[in-house]
Amino acid sequence: MIPRFNQRWLLTARPQGHVRESDFTWNESALEALEDGQILVRTVHLSIDPTNRLWMNEADSYLPAMPLGSVMRGSGIGVVEGSRNSRFVPGDVVQGLTGWQRYAVSDGRGFAKLPPLPVPFTAYLGALGHIGITAFFGLLDIGKPKAGETLVVSAGAGAVGSLVGQIGKIKGCRVVGIAGSEDKCRWMRDKLGFDAVINYRIENLPEAIRRHCPEGIDIYFDNVGGKILEVAMDHLAMRARIVACGMISQYNATDMHSPVNLATLIVKRARIEGFLCLDYYDRSMEAIGEIVEWLSAGKLHYRVDLMDGLENAPKALNRLFDGSNLGKMVVRVSEEPAAASQAQTYPQYPLN
Amino acid sequence: MIPRFNQRWLLTARPQGHVRESDFTWNESALEALEDGQILVRTVHLSIDPTNRLWMNEADSYLPAMPLGSVMRGSGIGVVEGSRNSRFVPGDVVQGLTGWQRYAVSDGRGFAKLPPLPVPFTAYLGALGHIGITAFFGLLDIGKPKAGETLVVSAGAGAVGSLVGQIGKIKGCRVVGIAGSEDKCRWMRDKLGFDAVINYRIENLPEAIRRHCPEGIDIYFDNVGGKILEVAMDHLAMRARIVACGMISQYNATDMHSPVNLATLIVKRARIEGFLCLDYYDRSMEAIGEIVEWLSAGKLHYRVDLMDGLENAPKALNRLFDGSNLGKMVVRVSEEPAAASQAQTYPQYPLN
Repeated sequence: MIPRFNQRWLLTARPQGHVRESDFTWNESALEALEDGQILVRTVHLSIDPTNRLWMNEADSYLPAMPLGSVMRGSGIGVVEGSRNSRFVPGDVVQGLTGWQRYAVSDGRGFAKLPPLPVPFTAYLGALGHIGITAFFGLLDIGKPKAGETLVVSAGAGAVGSLVGQIGKIKGCRVVGIAGSEDKCRWMRDKLGFDAVINYRIENLPEAIRRHCPEGIDIYFDNVGGKILEVAMDHLAMRARIVACGMISQYNATDMHSPVNLATLIVKRARIEGFLCLDYYDRSMEAIGEIVEWLSAGKLHYRVDLMDGLENAPKALNRLFDGSNLGKMVVRVSEEPAAASQAQTYPQYPLN
Repeated sequence: MIPRFNQRWLLTARPQGHVRESDFTWNESALEALEDGQILVRTVHLSIDPTNRLWMNEADSYLPAMPLGSVMRGSGIGVVEGSRNSRFVPGDVVQGLTGWQRYAVSDGRGFAKLPPLPVPFTAYLGALGHIGITAFFGLLDIGKPKAGETLVVSAGAGAVGSLVGQIGKIKGCRVVGIAGSEDKCRWMRDKLGFDAVINYRIENLPEAIRRHCPEGIDIYFDNVGGKILEVAMDHLAMRARIVACGMISQYNATDMHSPVNLATLIVKRARIEGFLCLDYYDRSMEAIGEIVEWLSAGKLHYRVDLMDGLENAPKALNRLFDGSNLGKMVVRVSEEPAAASQAQTYPQYPLN
């Protein structure tokens, strides 16, 4: 039985600086009957990521720009409720670009069925989703850590950063996490086991980095760009690698800062390298296999910042940029399906 | 017979922006008799490089900062005129940090005897010296060119850039050279065989790059930094490599510009990597072997901008920064020794 109405957030204005709710228009519209080949997906969880903000700009990013008036682009997890597509049956749990809407109608392209894993539903958008793949390949493939090296992670309590730091510890690095609140710093130090933490809002960052990285930074995993990137570059060790994962400080264009010290890359024979998790989807099972193992062994912790209600998606996005989110930001649009029964057959692992 | 007087340029002030002659003090002083283990080197050619300007700053670079009052640091080629060191005999041709002085007294560390090669004396400071090693390993080891790729070289008529572009052609790249005069552009196009040239002083650089690199830049070999680097970054192809060799536009601090578009490294999965030729000295014979072959086959051309007289060294250095030099900048301090006799047994190759 196909529901008759959809609720959607349309992008109707390009934000200047922080996102405002008025950049979106709430829309309710009838759902048409499915055509041959289509599926109807009920959105359960929306993944709220810094990249959502990039997608709102007029310029193309790694995906084409969204035209004004279209449903806000977003990735999420949902349940197939109707299918005229032979690849899917009702009840399938799928991940893909659902968009910021209660129901997505799709020809199925870009939607993948999720394997049943011994994890809570939110983990699919976190440690086992694009977040985990980003942290795993960004650190290991681009950063190439060696035991004993010093790894500095900005947004170290964030969804990606917290996994990066923990994987760094597993690989034998000395890990220094940077974040913007005492709560985040405490979590990184006490729960995640980072060797040192820096609250960049109250500490003198250059001084703190010199103190915690007396031999310089071997790997800087950058989620923020701007001034923190510049300070990190001032403290690179020889042959340092900067993993350019995100530059969240630059996305709202309110605190633009370009590092003035690029020439240090020459002096230190260092490199900055960018990557996108998209490029690693064909190798994702490599990451997921290890991550499930680490989760089961209690070596990886994560937290989910769950906000209820599709209507709160714009607010949730801004939480990433004002630093108030704690862990992977997720909007719950509708009820999670019952857990896969085999979940019980796997070892338990800590969630916080 | 040891000469009794030396002439030297001492660094006595830190330059602001362009170097002025008043930053140096001309000094004549007596030469002491050699002590045990020392050699006396008569400077023949001084290599004038952008890095000389960096060394004048108060901050350490990849070498420690020079104290005020010391002889200006510089690398050069000379002839041993006296030796109380068993590794050297009078008549040896050596390369090392002679400094800006007529005679260098050294314990021999950092001085290497040059192999006799079928090249004019100036080539030791050019294609076969640090310039050639920089171009060879910078392009091949850091840039990793593949046939068919588009290589853009800034300061493409410069000592390093002109070799980089020609080696790029040898490796099958499409080569676009950027320079600041019509003479330089003509030379790159007509003599060096670059596929396209851009005079950044009179052309619209973004428009010209779009025209000459319709599929984007695969390798940008950067000698200049600043605004040209920024424009190049705006036109990267997927998985582009930026070889950070030098950032001459930034050394005088009169035209400082930090690229605002570092996030493009993420979108394009691209990297910037710095290097120094110092790190490749133990592999220098790999480069020299190939370069001699290419020179002999007429596949590599270079030019030398020879200025006579130690007293002109400060002027020669500024020629690098006002763009008026044509080719490798060299100051001739004293007469070249007679050519090694075996030079005649090698094939001839064109010099211009």
